[in-house]
Amino acid sequence: MLLQLSTWPEVENYLSYSTGIIIPIGSTEQHGPTGLIGTDAICAEVIAKGVGEATAAMVGPTLHLGMALHHTAFSGTISLRPSTLIQVVMDYITCLAVSGFRRFFWINGHGGNIATLKAAFAETYYHLANLNIPHADEIRCEIANWFMCREVYQLAKKLYGDQEGSHATPSEVALTQFVYPDLIKTATLDTQVASGYPIYGAADFRRHYPDGRMGSNPALATPEQGQQFYQLAVKELSNSYLEFIAKA
Amino acid sequence: MLLQLSTWPEVENYLSYSTGIIIPIGSTEQHGPTGLIGTDAICAEVIAKGVGEATAAMVGPTLHLGMALHHTAFSGTISLRPSTLIQVVMDYITCLAVSGFRRFFWINGHGGNIATLKAAFAETYYHLANLNIPHADEIRCEIANWFMCREVYQLAKKLYGDQEGSHATPSEVALTQFVYPDLIKTATLDTQVASGYPIYGAADFRRHYPDGRMGSNPALATPEQGQQFYQLAVKELSNSYLEFIAKA
Amino acid sequence: MLLQLSTWPEVENYLSYSTGIIIPIGSTEQHGPTGLIGTDAICAEVIAKGVGEATAAMVGPTLHLGMALHHTAFSGTISLRPSTLIQVVMDYITCLAVSGFRRFFWINGHGGNIATLKAAFAETYYHLANLNIPHADEIRCEIANWFMCREVYQLAKKLYGDQEGSHATPSEVALTQFVYPDLIKTATLDTQVASGYPIYGAADFRRHYPDGRMGSNPALATPEQGQQFYQLAVKELSNSYLEFIAKA
Amino acid sequence: MLLQLSTWPEVENYLSYSTGIIIPIGSTEQHGPTGLIGTDAICAEVIAKGVGEATAAMVGPTLHLGMALHHTAFSGTISLRPSTLIQVVMDYITCLAVSGFRRFFWINGHGGNIATLKAAFAETYYHLANLNIPHADEIRCEIANWFMCREVYQLAKKLYGDQEGSHATPSEVALTQFVYPDLIKTATLDTQVASGYPIYGAADFRRHYPDGRMGSNPALATPEQGQQFYQLAVKELSNSYLEFIAKA
Amino acid sequence: MLLQLSTWPEVENYLSYSTGIIIPIGSTEQHGPTGLIGTDAICAEVIAKGVGEATAAMVGPTLHLGMALHHTAFSGTISLRPSTLIQVVMDYITCLAVSGFRRFFWINGHGGNIATLKAAFAETYYHLANLNIPHADEIRCEIANWFMCREVYQLAKKLYGDQEGSHATPSEVALTQFVYPDLIKTATLDTQVASGYPIYGAADFRRHYPDGRMGSNPALATPEQGQQFYQLAVKELSNSYLEFIAKA
Amino acid sequence: MLLQLSTWPEVENYLSYSTGIIIPIGSTEQHGPTGLIGTDAICAEVIAKGVGEATAAMVGPTLHLGMALHHTAFSGTISLRPSTLIQVVMDYITCLAVSGFRRFFWINGHGGNIATLKAAFAETYYHLANLNIPHADEIRCEIANWFMCREVYQLAKKLYGDQEGSHATPSEVALTQFVYPDLIKTATLDTQVASGYPIYGAADFRRHYPDGRMGSNPALATPEQGQQFYQLAVKELSNSYLEFIAKA
Repeated sequence: MLLQLSTWPEVENYLSYSTGIIIPIGSTEQHGPTGLIGTDAICAEVIAKGVGEATAAMVGPTLHLGMALHHTAFSGTISLRPSTLIQVVMDYITCLAVSGFRRFFWINGHGGNIATLKAAFAETYYHLANLNIPHADEIRCEIANWFMCREVYQLAKKLYGDQEGSHATPSEVALTQFVYPDLIKTATLDTQVASGYPIYGAADFRRHYPDGRMGSNPALATPEQGQQFYQLAVKELSNSYLEFIAKA
Repeated sequence: MLLQLSTWPEVENYLSYSTGIIIPIGSTEQHGPTGLIGTDAICAEVIAKGVGEATAAMVGPTLHLGMALHHTAFSGTISLRPSTLIQVVMDYITCLAVSGFRRFFWINGHGGNIATLKAAFAETYYHLANLNIPHADEIRCEIANWFMCREVYQLAKKLYGDQEGSHATPSEVALTQFVYPDLIKTATLDTQVASGYPIYGAADFRRHYPDGRMGSNPALATPEQGQQFYQLAVKELSNSYLEFIAKA
Repeated sequence: MLLQLSTWPEVENYLSYSTGIIIPIGSTEQHGPTGLIGTDAICAEVIAKGVGEATAAMVGPTLHLGMALHHTAFSGTISLRPSTLIQVVMDYITCLAVSGFRRFFWINGHGGNIATLKAAFAETYYHLANLNIPHADEIRCEIANWFMCREVYQLAKKLYGDQEGSHATPSEVALTQFVYPDLIKTATLDTQVASGYPIYGAADFRRHYPDGRMGSNPALATPEQGQQFYQLAVKELSNSYLEFIAKA
Repeated sequence: MLLQLSTWPEVENYLSYSTGIIIPIGSTEQHGPTGLIGTDAICAEVIAKGVGEATAAMVGPTLHLGMALHHTAFSGTISLRPSTLIQVVMDYITCLAVSGFRRFFWINGHGGNIATLKAAFAETYYHLANLNIPHADEIRCEIANWFMCREVYQLAKKLYGDQEGSHATPSEVALTQFVYPDLIKTATLDTQVASGYPIYGAADFRRHYPDGRMGSNPALATPEQGQQFYQLAVKELSNSYLEFIAKA
Repeated sequence: MLLQLSTWPEVENYLSYSTGIIIPIGSTEQHGPTGLIGTDAICAEVIAKGVGEATAAMVGPTLHLGMALHHTAFSGTISLRPSTLIQVVMDYITCLAVSGFRRFFWINGHGGNIATLKAAFAETYYHLANLNIPHADEIRCEIANWFMCREVYQLAKKLYGDQEGSHATPSEVALTQFVYPDLIKTATLDTQVASGYPIYGAADFRRHYPDGRMGSNPALATPEQGQQFYQLAVKELSNSYLEFIAKA
Repeated sequence: MLLQLSTWPEVENYLSYSTGIIIPIGSTEQHGPTGLIGTDAICAEVIAKGVGEATAAMVGPTLHLGMALHHTAFSGTISLRPSTLIQVVMDYITCLAVSGFRRFFWINGHGGNIATLKAAFAETYYHLANLNIPHADEIRCEIANWFMCREVYQLAKKLYGDQEGSHATPSEVALTQFVYPDLIKTATLDTQVASGYPIYGAADFRRHYPDGRMGSNPALATPEQGQQFYQLAVKELSNSYLEFIAKA
């Protein structure tokens, strides 16, 4: 069930038997010469929908904007500041907590979001404890990074080895190709690609990663591989979600 | 062109001949017993894509969360606080301004967003004037409310008369039916429906509008009407967009 | 009754029979070559006092600073940022809500305030719902723009036609002349005056409206007309106020 | 010259020979059973106007709301939170600094404002240093508390001795009586009045100062004394202002 | 008892017989050519520990960063903005208030902190009144500036006369020499030292106080004098603390 | 060199040959029945000083307060909210960047700080890029968690196996015993200790970890082991620091 495609009485009915919700969060950021700017949101959303179907869970609207300040020296990147994202997450959870939701399962498509999400959850628990929300201390959030699913990770290693890299990876590009098979972009990629340099500010990032890739070779990606990643991630995260909501 | 489905070099190329971008903003809020919670985002997004195609303009990622605090007494509504939304809009524009965008055409699906958007634009212009962005004083934002397009408004009046109402309207429901013809929801709607009561806080709103509708009869909506609204809005807003970016 | 000229026991007594209060809000911004910088506050305040007398209502202290960021390229303009004004409005209402006030009637002298005020009211209702204030959900705000009163508007059209314009208008200048008949300023006004250009940032505004007027000819104003505007506005807004506080 | 009663070209002209401005700041707070809620703003404003006349200085609009959180358990008190007041002061100064003002002389009517004003000035200097304002490092603020003028203080001691107290004092009440001789309020004042208890939160304040006075006997005040205070304060602060703007 | 060196059960036990806590707050700022950057924190901390021992009171962790924006043109100064410090103080007190503490005795080593601390306390009282903390209206804060203790002040005058100055004073330098006798720094100090110039922004401060001292001659300091200051301050503030927590 | 124990000319001199600084950050939070509340700050500080000595690096003042909201249901815990900590870190770095520092090496004693620190660094880089600081894009931060040093981790596993746990661990307790050998606390520890339960809000945390420990047996700790941890951490982090500042 997609929250966006439900009516409020349907949501009310859902809440009579479940307090869990799945929330996709991505990012809007450069993904190298051939990767889609929306890659992280596309991946998070399609997997969240898959998990929602597999588990009959409610899926909330996708947060397209994440924490990508280090990519802002590349055209088209749109990032929230961490302090803005914290407020967005706080508002998102608080409204749904008022509705009655208690278990928030965040399917995340961008490593750069993790730190701010964790900070936001901590601030939200604290904030909610002082509102007039019954059982506010039962509210729980969990981050599920699809790209860190064990079998996803193993398949990526097997298919791409070191060329998986850590940004604009063939695995995430493959997944977007599975979703948008007509939108496969190509470019002449430098075979030498920087990797291993830590992330600081945006100008520094671009100096060290001039085409935006971090150690990756996205040319290896195919839509069929994307489908495999999709299936593995949906399967593993469906289990994770069910465990999450079952926990006392 | 959708920003989310473009690569950063494609965006860079686009910026060599245009600095305009279309941004859909909706809301995640109850739309009466039969309206989809995502109605405002769905409408804004589909029209934005239509305008983007008609004018070869870039379309940014949809903001699903808007200012809907008055609907938060209904399950499933998710609203940003105005002060949060101002920060989100400021971050959105600032990042794109750094990229080189100068004309921001916001296609809006929710009347409740207008005030906060206007406030956010004013704060953003002021903020940008103090950053190191060349030609920051040429940055312009315009709000285009699809439901206030002249021909859209006239058609709604003609088709529904007073039963158009002002929230969970048959026109917006029709548009979502055009987009999702398989998701037409039905319910027994009270023929008596409140209208004309001003909007204050969430609990007060629900007391006065117990099923969430404001003077509307969404049962009148059909997908075919939705298509008409779509076409009228795309045509009118395409003209508006072209005028907006052409202005000296 | 003016709050500023009352004692706290007098306010306590007032609250025993009324929970309504009138709040004038203006702006401190350029009003063309001959208009007073305080025009919007002066107009809002004098009308608020008139309405207060006519209805025996409490009138709070005037907010002199509003949202006028687009005028800040002209000397003497002082504007709050929207995010600041939201906090000011929230503090203003919250304190009075703690006292027991429940109906806030904002008499506004500046179109540029409307958006931020609406955003602020929404945020305030939401904020108050989580404080320990009894009957917080009965708190209501209404904006009354004196210049949009039906008869005010009609008289302005009749007296000035198109030369009313939309900023530094003869109607508002006339009203300040009625209040300060000794302070009628004159200047050689260009007969060509820009109009119709939308409002973006401050530098852009000044480029398009070089002397600060927006389509207006304030030289048409007289103190006698100002008195007429005053009387019409007080009459209409007194009715509006009484309806506002009478509503269940 | 009052900024509110000037046009922008008049302000521009003023800036050609002076960069000084006087800003009255008061508070909206209970002043005991007979003191006006607006006492602090009334006193600051009338003295600021007097100093402005005596020194041909520009006088900005009065800030009616100050930091009076400890008085909020009494009906009618309206306070800004310190963090809000800091933003207001920052916006006020920043706008005028953009205009070209460099010397800000704050005539203050409320002891409770001093701490927050000082904090606000520090934050503003720091903020301005990072904006594109020429000579931002020449911006200076000074607080002038009229009630701490040497001769004002001495006269109060002479007239009232210990009954001057520290809130709702006869000296400030006298000054408001001078301004509003028709608004002299009376009440039976308990001859026992609390004093010397430190200020903490609002409920605590009211428990210790049940009628709002702090050690004062405002019944001693007369309008004639108010006139004396007015003259002494205007004289002393005029000198202070002239010294302030003359300093290299 | 030092909070940092206690276990939580020990704190819980302490709270069974006392709700008082001592909090040292300093600053990290230039102290002239020979003064330690940490002078204010060192002094506050050592005296706080002394008072804690003398009164068997709990001592919280030292806040090393205070409000020193005007010193930031000198290398090594680290200051919080006032608005940041307000949030820090609010979080500090709120957490301890949740634990059960009710009396907060702030031993302060830096005059520049006083204004922001007072603002922070006011905002905290107000904030706490709306949380679910029992007896929140009994929470009290007091600032104790060790350098303003009567006997400390008298000794400094006696030892140094006018050469005490107001920043990088021999008295505070002496106290740090008592704490760190092996870290006595020397430099050729200009015998002419600026004094009496008010504090505005950082660049302005450095122009007027080029080596960072304000009217002081820290070369007069000795560790033995430091010990005397220590003893006087501990004695006086121990009495102050005991009176503070004993007050009904 | 400790910044707090240096003069500003010494810092200026240091900056002539190095732009690196080490910053210890801890937390003030319960550490089980026997662990010191200041454990994380004590560990970070002592190791930072050791690294500073080994590398002749400047060491800034310790941040005693970190992100420990989940521990606030235990007496004595003091936490900053993430949004506060972000501001503190931003102020800390900005001031030192103005001084000329460019490499910030954060020695961290608390896992719960990592997420917020990362968020804060990203926001700081972005913020600094818009200030007038030369070479702002060369500013870099690195987090060094002493407890995650390879040899520290291995020794802890070897000494304690599973009883190391993840909070109030014997390794960190041992390190505090090395620093404060006279402050070794004992208590009867339940041999059954919860572990593996994720961290949500404060009340939930205490329900699942009733004495505050997470899977640990701090009774295994000895001061001698603490010394070993100290030496291993200082050695490894000294290398890390030198690599960090040497990187182009």
